[in-house]
Amino acid sequence: MTRKSGHTANWAPSRRAFLTGAAGAALTTSAATALPGAARAAGDPAITEIKDWNRYLGEGVDAAPYGAPSPFEAHVVRRDVPWLTADPVSSVNFTPLHELDGIITPNGLCFERHHAGVATIDPAEHRLMINGLVDTPLVFTMQDLQRFPRENRLYFLECAANTGMEWRGAQLNGCQFTHGMVHCVVYTGVPLKLLLDEAGLKASGTWLLAEGADAAAMTRSIPLEKALDDCLVAFKMNGEALRPEQGYPLRLVVPGWEGNMWVKWLRRLEIGDAPYAQREETSKYTDLLDDGTARRHTFVMDVKSVITSPSPQAPVTHGKGPLVITGLAWSGNGRISRVDVSLDGGRNWQTARLDGPSLSKALHRFYLDIDWDGSELLLQSRAIDEAGYVQPSKDALRAARGVNSIYHNNGIQTWQVRADGVVENVEVS
Amino acid sequence: MTRKSGHTANWAPSRRAFLTGAAGAALTTSAATALPGAARAAGDPAITEIKDWNRYLGEGVDAAPYGAPSPFEAHVVRRDVPWLTADPVSSVNFTPLHELDGIITPNGLCFERHHAGVATIDPAEHRLMINGLVDTPLVFTMQDLQRFPRENRLYFLECAANTGMEWRGAQLNGCQFTHGMVHCVVYTGVPLKLLLDEAGLKASGTWLLAEGADAAAMTRSIPLEKALDDCLVAFKMNGEALRPEQGYPLRLVVPGWEGNMWVKWLRRLEIGDAPYAQREETSKYTDLLDDGTARRHTFVMDVKSVITSPSPQAPVTHGKGPLVITGLAWSGNGRISRVDVSLDGGRNWQTARLDGPSLSKALHRFYLDIDWDGSELLLQSRAIDEAGYVQPSKDALRAARGVNSIYHNNGIQTWQVRADGVVENVEVS
Repeated sequence: MTRKSGHTANWAPSRRAFLTGAAGAALTTSAATALPGAARAAGDPAITEIKDWNRYLGEGVDAAPYGAPSPFEAHVVRRDVPWLTADPVSSVNFTPLHELDGIITPNGLCFERHHAGVATIDPAEHRLMINGLVDTPLVFTMQDLQRFPRENRLYFLECAANTGMEWRGAQLNGCQFTHGMVHCVVYTGVPLKLLLDEAGLKASGTWLLAEGADAAAMTRSIPLEKALDDCLVAFKMNGEALRPEQGYPLRLVVPGWEGNMWVKWLRRLEIGDAPYAQREETSKYTDLLDDGTARRHTFVMDVKSVITSPSPQAPVTHGKGPLVITGLAWSGNGRISRVDVSLDGGRNWQTARLDGPSLSKALHRFYLDIDWDGSELLLQSRAIDEAGYVQPSKDALRAARGVNSIYHNNGIQTWQVRADGVVENVEVS
Repeated sequence: MTRKSGHTANWAPSRRAFLTGAAGAALTTSAATALPGAARAAGDPAITEIKDWNRYLGEGVDAAPYGAPSPFEAHVVRRDVPWLTADPVSSVNFTPLHELDGIITPNGLCFERHHAGVATIDPAEHRLMINGLVDTPLVFTMQDLQRFPRENRLYFLECAANTGMEWRGAQLNGCQFTHGMVHCVVYTGVPLKLLLDEAGLKASGTWLLAEGADAAAMTRSIPLEKALDDCLVAFKMNGEALRPEQGYPLRLVVPGWEGNMWVKWLRRLEIGDAPYAQREETSKYTDLLDDGTARRHTFVMDVKSVITSPSPQAPVTHGKGPLVITGLAWSGNGRISRVDVSLDGGRNWQTARLDGPSLSKALHRFYLDIDWDGSELLLQSRAIDEAGYVQPSKDALRAARGVNSIYHNNGIQTWQVRADGVVENVEVS
């Protein structure tokens, strides 16, 4: 008998055959949908059998050196919106927040935003240069960087344009699209301060220019005070190497600040004595106000939250009774101290349960477990951070900044849950 | 112009073509290996250019709905040892600990151990039954379970047989193989206590039998006290659905206890008044001592640590000077309070730096940053947990338990770092 004969015999269909055969058929003939109640007695005639999965041997440990999700989860993917931009090489796709739980985003589902496609970089050839107002300009290989002391930190990363479409009213029907330009992973990297100290900062240095090795040569100015505080030059996310679309092999981590500043494919850091007024901090990533002036250097991502389920892509399919309301909250100012949830469009609020580690500038998961009576809900969440900032209403934001802006919309989101469980993106005043 | 013409024109090779063409060649002609020192001045003639990656547009945001690692990281995979077992459907593969950092294991790299292959289960058809000494036997659908209050917890999972080959001396040359049956992810699930309360426990109940839906029908007995304390019935890991090889769609989480008890593809929980004496807790997962008796119900995974780099698969390639020594520590008793590192086979010890969140029954990451003089090292790490337990030497373990055992080897590991940077698995007395 050969080593593998045991699980390739006729009576034991391979996993692939099983998926396209028996299980595929079962998906269309299943009676197990939307049963009422939170559990049922074992004698319930609706339950005809405990399915006999154990008649089949499955794949062995040699089948998938790097694993993948179940084929039954094929719908849990990043999604782009083709009409949003002229070309997918300068565009965005969105994290499927409505399908996730906890506070870690799996690397394969972290949203992408790039300006000239995903750079393909051989780490053995990659270099990081530090120049400008330093005593000794330096060039580091990846191996050089990995000889400095490292840190591991869990941080959210949010695009400044996240929720940008909502400035002018409810636009997109799903939190993946309204709020999906955020993710949260553990970064491993070297504190930027250590590298700058190695080069030696001249006293006149006040700003840093970070430059990427992609075809957009993404460049952003960062105050040196921030660079010396908590920035990292990271080479790993969630334990493994950065993903290509997240800057492999090197990315700048700028905790709590807008995602565009977290320069990917990082190749150069220049020290100067003023901001550099690059394209991505003048014509873009500034906030045009009603009076024609623009807010600039709006780096911090303000306190924000969103209910991820129920939501338009995650309707209530089980009818009334126990219902888990869950969502995410975050703030560039530190920890989230409280999240309130309203069922009636902001008239009344209940304090949600925060669950899981509470770490500064990371996503926080919240829950409100209710007994739903089946009547319409107008779901809202409102986060408060440890600095005391309270997430504002969309109307309050518009009164302060007008509706010309694309960036920094941290307004309270409203989901209408209808009696039939369907959920819509709506606005309430 | 079609929408994609911009990045498929002749002058902009597609990412795939680039990888098999120019970059593939660059891999063999690169001069950028093993340069001495921690960084070099930008004028150094060894650095001829900052590589011009930015001549090429990359893939757009529509290219990878579910992302994958860089092709340059293709070596970072789980590996099995074909001669270890008779068939890969009842075998193990190993987490590449030497390539990872931080405390999160990416889902695709979590080691696999199964006894009848990976069960393929349609979540819409899956059921969890609770029966035995309960007031009301119950059957739950996946949707039913998702209506109970949830928790998110970061826990290590270690196979009881991890490091088992080392009982009889240094065997396997790499921490992936000596210690790679451990991983650490955030689980989202329902406290088991809530489900048991729903069924109503009879006063006579003291043990719980957990049964899997795989062809091995994996069954283990768990004291009810533990089940009511911190066990979870989990459906997500690191934010997304459980991976198939980790029990999709449902797994029992038994924090700090041996991995075999974390029953995958969980389909039944039976309450009884005694342990069930199943195969996997009698002929297996008991520890045969020198006097012919066996320790049984050795559930807790004791305090343990290992240096992941340098290690046999992660040699020192940069010569003397700054060297980052890093590793992992964990304990089934709670948090790690301290890790010591020895450079000389246990004669002298230095306290390592613990970095990142310190969470009960999770992996802890430690570092010792040294200035290596290039002489031989005998690297060891020794962890101490918050209960006061100190990781023992292998000799102390053998004196207490003999060498018949396979399980629960938490002895101190030694790596010999030679002057040329090559690392070997050795024993010191």
